[in-house]
Amino acid sequence: MTDTVISSASKEVVIGFDRPFVLIGERINPTGRKLLAAEMAAGDYSRVETDALAQVAAGAHVLDVNAGIPLADEPAILAEAVKLVQTLTNVPLSIDSSIVAALESGLSVYKGKALVNSVTGEEERLESVLPLVKKHGAAVVAISNDETGISEDPDVRFDVAKKIVERAADHGIDRSDIVVDPLVMPIGAMNSAGVQVMRLVRRLREELKVNTTCGASNVSFGLPNRNGMNAAFLTMAIGAGMTSAITNPLHAEVLQAILGADVMMGHDPDCRDWIRKYREPAAEGQGGARERGGRRRRRG
Amino acid sequence: MTDTVISSASKEVVIGFDRPFVLIGERINPTGRKLLAAEMAAGDYSRVETDALAQVAAGAHVLDVNAGIPLADEPAILAEAVKLVQTLTNVPLSIDSSIVAALESGLSVYKGKALVNSVTGEEERLESVLPLVKKHGAAVVAISNDETGISEDPDVRFDVAKKIVERAADHGIDRSDIVVDPLVMPIGAMNSAGVQVMRLVRRLREELKVNTTCGASNVSFGLPNRNGMNAAFLTMAIGAGMTSAITNPLHAEVLQAILGADVMMGHDPDCRDWIRKYREPAAEGQGGARERGGRRRRRG
Repeated sequence: MTDTVISSASKEVVIGFDRPFVLIGERINPTGRKLLAAEMAAGDYSRVETDALAQVAAGAHVLDVNAGIPLADEPAILAEAVKLVQTLTNVPLSIDSSIVAALESGLSVYKGKALVNSVTGEEERLESVLPLVKKHGAAVVAISNDETGISEDPDVRFDVAKKIVERAADHGIDRSDIVVDPLVMPIGAMNSAGVQVMRLVRRLREELKVNTTCGASNVSFGLPNRNGMNAAFLTMAIGAGMTSAITNPLHAEVLQAILGADVMMGHDPDCRDWIRKYREPAAEGQGGARERGGRRRRRG
Repeated sequence: MTDTVISSASKEVVIGFDRPFVLIGERINPTGRKLLAAEMAAGDYSRVETDALAQVAAGAHVLDVNAGIPLADEPAILAEAVKLVQTLTNVPLSIDSSIVAALESGLSVYKGKALVNSVTGEEERLESVLPLVKKHGAAVVAISNDETGISEDPDVRFDVAKKIVERAADHGIDRSDIVVDPLVMPIGAMNSAGVQVMRLVRRLREELKVNTTCGASNVSFGLPNRNGMNAAFLTMAIGAGMTSAITNPLHAEVLQAILGADVMMGHDPDCRDWIRKYREPAAEGQGGARERGGRRRRRG
């Protein structure tokens, strides 16, 4: 039973084995979004604002904030985005960058206990990100690849995760502050990807006793009806014990899969959130009901 | 690794641990369908015909046929329905009745190896249905309740299933010819129903080594957006190892959950069925593509 606590200035969210699934909104990310990238680089954060509010209204419990724009001043932009989003909403943030200076810049302006996204098993990354995580008292997403890349062997990915957990302990970071991303392969390219992830999630939970997350939409890469496949993946991964995911709450099917899986896991007492969301079909898509609802209070 | 083989005169379907999920169409059942009941009682089988064809076109691999109409001659009507459906489609049938004489009547006209639906752990039922199953060389659905009713304790339900498997062995029926229904409670009334079923399905598979089925829609009884909840349940149950279900293939969300779960389990090589179904949105709902596709051949 492991709880990973993250927070904003006024609100805690707990990722945990026996808790409702935590949905980390993925939208504030200029990767593959040319318009957003250009706007952010030019200091226009209006779309960041819209994306933040829409995701929280739809049911995101945490927001990922990424400012990875080629040739731009990523540390400065990430800090600006983090500051802005924290004025708009009280959900905790996942500060997302592949550049350590950007993580540091984002963390330096963040109010609360952030989720740092991410550290890998690469030596250089371990020794630059973990001290930062410790210094800021943050939690961190640990991605199970290393210098050799992403292994197709889930046992190797487990070993990489174990190495990160051990190294973090050397830095004084508890395993409860590590959320492992076991890495989800596109199932169209590797038919065993689903079974792999489920086994890996179970091992991470039972043997390594860590919470887990993933970029859920990768699984459906190249396939038609991606949201339908993402929904199947998330439902099954939650059944196997996955405790959070970085995904898009604005996709109705994805959100429904998560709410339904929470009911199935016994994490939505009396199906309150499900009933609130689906009682009136007219209210669907407005999302506000859930934000105002009891779920946040229970989760915190 | 257990395979339950059922067949029509010309086609085999295998319910098995490492095979695509088997969808048993539930529609040919007058329970709660007044119009259908009245028509069948009056010898009008036109709706049975439509329901049979539509379910097979949508992707049912087996059809359940039930003729439970109060005060009607159920044995005669069930036999008529079985004969008719076997002229319309070559999918194997599940012959469904709570009246032993009706099961016998249906079996006597059936061509192939039927699935008998069902036996329970009740003494009288065991001793009347199992000899019938043996005599006709059929397979049988074993429902895990007995004289004391349906236990809320999943361990008791497991024990009932075990008793049925043992008694069947006494009658010369192999466990591979038994498909256990662990009984799914409405999750709105019992929040642990989902977790219970998943544990039970795993035990039935690992300890008792039997295939499993269920009436999937019971889980969502009393809730809004029942198809969404049924989809979540089926996906998670398949992840836990359930190998078939009696459900409605005409519900797009239910069918999508099953196809998606098959992909996730590695049971849809190269995602062929998924791609065929969802490649052209215009083709959705026509269902013919799947019927003509490679899935049936792989399953058989």
